[in-house]
Amino acid sequence: MIPFKLTEELIAEIEQLIENQKNTKLEGLLEEVHYADVAEIINELNEDDATYLIKLLDSDKTSDVLTELDDDVREAILNNLSVKEIAGELEELDTDDAADIVAELPDEIVQEVISEIEDRDHAKDIVDLLRYDENSAGGLMAKELVKVNENWNVLTCVKEMREQAENVTRVHSIYVVNDDDVLLGRLSLKDLLTTSTKTHIKDVYISKVDSVNVNEDSEEVAKIMSKYDLEAIPVVDEMGRLVGRITIDDIVDVIKEEADKDYQLAAGISQVVEADDNIWELTRARLPWLFLGLIGGVGAAAIMGGFEEMISKHAILFFFTPLIAAMAGNVGVQSSAIIVQGLANDDLKGSVSNRLIKEMLLATLNGLILAMILLLFTWWWNGDFNTALAISLSLVAVIIVAGIIGTFIPLFLDKRGIDPAIATGPFITTSNDIFGILIYFWIAKLILGI
Amino acid sequence: MIPFKLTEELIAEIEQLIENQKNTKLEGLLEEVHYADVAEIINELNEDDATYLIKLLDSDKTSDVLTELDDDVREAILNNLSVKEIAGELEELDTDDAADIVAELPDEIVQEVISEIEDRDHAKDIVDLLRYDENSAGGLMAKELVKVNENWNVLTCVKEMREQAENVTRVHSIYVVNDDDVLLGRLSLKDLLTTSTKTHIKDVYISKVDSVNVNEDSEEVAKIMSKYDLEAIPVVDEMGRLVGRITIDDIVDVIKEEADKDYQLAAGISQVVEADDNIWELTRARLPWLFLGLIGGVGAAAIMGGFEEMISKHAILFFFTPLIAAMAGNVGVQSSAIIVQGLANDDLKGSVSNRLIKEMLLATLNGLILAMILLLFTWWWNGDFNTALAISLSLVAVIIVAGIIGTFIPLFLDKRGIDPAIATGPFITTSNDIFGILIYFWIAKLILGI
Repeated sequence: MIPFKLTEELIAEIEQLIENQKNTKLEGLLEEVHYADVAEIINELNEDDATYLIKLLDSDKTSDVLTELDDDVREAILNNLSVKEIAGELEELDTDDAADIVAELPDEIVQEVISEIEDRDHAKDIVDLLRYDENSAGGLMAKELVKVNENWNVLTCVKEMREQAENVTRVHSIYVVNDDDVLLGRLSLKDLLTTSTKTHIKDVYISKVDSVNVNEDSEEVAKIMSKYDLEAIPVVDEMGRLVGRITIDDIVDVIKEEADKDYQLAAGISQVVEADDNIWELTRARLPWLFLGLIGGVGAAAIMGGFEEMISKHAILFFFTPLIAAMAGNVGVQSSAIIVQGLANDDLKGSVSNRLIKEMLLATLNGLILAMILLLFTWWWNGDFNTALAISLSLVAVIIVAGIIGTFIPLFLDKRGIDPAIATGPFITTSNDIFGILIYFWIAKLILGI
Repeated sequence: MIPFKLTEELIAEIEQLIENQKNTKLEGLLEEVHYADVAEIINELNEDDATYLIKLLDSDKTSDVLTELDDDVREAILNNLSVKEIAGELEELDTDDAADIVAELPDEIVQEVISEIEDRDHAKDIVDLLRYDENSAGGLMAKELVKVNENWNVLTCVKEMREQAENVTRVHSIYVVNDDDVLLGRLSLKDLLTTSTKTHIKDVYISKVDSVNVNEDSEEVAKIMSKYDLEAIPVVDEMGRLVGRITIDDIVDVIKEEADKDYQLAAGISQVVEADDNIWELTRARLPWLFLGLIGGVGAAAIMGGFEEMISKHAILFFFTPLIAAMAGNVGVQSSAIIVQGLANDDLKGSVSNRLIKEMLLATLNGLILAMILLLFTWWWNGDFNTALAISLSLVAVIIVAGIIGTFIPLFLDKRGIDPAIATGPFITTSNDIFGILIYFWIAKLILGI
């Protein structure tokens, strides 16, 4: 396939067509364009043009476009649509996507929008979904699924399924329930293709079926689905009743968002932002961590001020503080990153103390190699072996302490139920800067005997 | 579902059973355990016990277990299996997983293993897959798919599909080809459920079908599938012939690996490692970046040495170098992380110069706020307004330069075709440390007139 490429020429052409109200041309131009690509185009337009396009195009396409738009663009467009128009868009969407949009609407119009939806079952399903936390299985699931009663035979089943399948974009599994709607098992489409029509469902279904509780955390659902290679998973309530289904495409989004969040936390960005957000949003995400760094730096300066008497005889010690701070920071970030990732992927085994001992050995090994190089260099530069030794020995100590702090803090936060990802980045760097410089001057003072 | 929990008790119990060769008990214990969980158990066993279990259990389960094992564990086990046993495992696997395992085998036994596979078509498919780069669509795809000829009718189609479906774990779409095997379109299972049996395929298939070229980069395939919410995508060769199919579960792995790699690069870890890798592997991944930091630190020390004459009158300047270095590093990492993520998600629009201007404004805003706080503090601490002003003004300049470097370097690397993710972390931190300290002393010298 030739991937769609958003160009400035295309945007200019569309803006021109909108200005001249060339509706037929616009429709023709966008007819073959995938809704995800139309959303990219609309993200680039101004509010009026964006609304114009949404009103112009068919609602079976624009409804999908709406789900793919940037949050702020969608909000602006929905503001310009009438209650009836919004209801029309919701009518076309799967219940999970529709509920996501309803959740973003201003409270005062929600009821009105819902009452305008013609398909009352669809409206009811959307309202049902609204009550779940967006980070839970309930917040991810859709009501659209294909289910059959254990007492039907294959023929009835196929007939019923044809009707149900009309509303379901993708049929993964056919879920089997009893008269109380309790999930009993599943029937694969493949089995259905190869079974005689008179067989009773209760005689052919597979009773083993993975499911998640409606309150399960969405990250946990993502782990289960990706570990067991599931493309869809049924969701049950506390009584085991089948209430919805989560598909892998929603899980892909969860995985990507989670990865983006962790990456940004490691880089010292405290809320999920994008490069195209405005300066104010970016400042709010970045300034708090920088402020933390400022405090750390002031702390480091205060510590160095405390060792001021050493400056006349051993100025060189002060020249190496950025090196010590940088190494402490780097080692801390490395070791915390490995722990954070191990926790996220659930592949940390063994006890905390084993892990600390391992990190200590690793840090000692790395520290000794680096200190040896530094020793030779500073000895050559400064000519004084004792100073060179003091700096190099401190480096080893600082690296070991930094490794231990970097390993311990995320494990500790995780035990406390706090997201360990916040421990990486500026948090570790700043605390390791301060500890590192303190240890450095303390050891230097000891060795040089001042 | 109750998630499987790997406990030390379970491992001990299994080790005990293996020692006493209680085969029936072992089989019973592991019968209901998912292969992904069995793999977790085997990862914890020693080589002999692991091999024992693999030989004991049914090959329809152990083949899947093999694909889920840690690389080193799998290698050790395969070493202990005979050529015939390996062929038996490959027999049970889908072609893509089988090809991945064959690619890991020592060259000298590959031919022998292949010749022991009884299903010759399966063997041929595996060999076909071996020639593709593992990071390409060809390296991800499986040969198992359901395809029908445009000239068949629905009845023939269903009959043929039943046979083909035997070999396919999950049927997503039915691909329609012509007599030359060229991909023409698809037929959804849903459509098939609702079409009369005499209809010809050529009259009902959907001619619009997304596909990727067999040489397409796997990250690009991941982007396409997640953007367009595809659960499977057909792969075609240069002549448009259908050669395989990629499913979303493989893409989930690509997305996770990519995220892990970027995260580790940002943390200064140069190859994908896990917390449970040995100290030597971890050192190889971590030491290069630490060495880079060491060089940066030595560079910073040399710069400070060059300004030594300032130390007697303005020792306080030297106390603030860790602060300056830390701020330069933090700002650089923040801005590069946003760019790297924007590039990865394909949502950077606008020109490079616009982006640099924006980052400059943002850095100026953040810098001024932080400098104001620092000015008041250092003035209060030191009593000398000029020194405080010199430090604070330098901070603003350093933050702006750091922001620009952090924005520019990943954009530059990306243009050059180098993975911009290596620009985050130690690379940016180290270069910003040096630039930051240089700018700092230079401005201080200018203002304090020494």
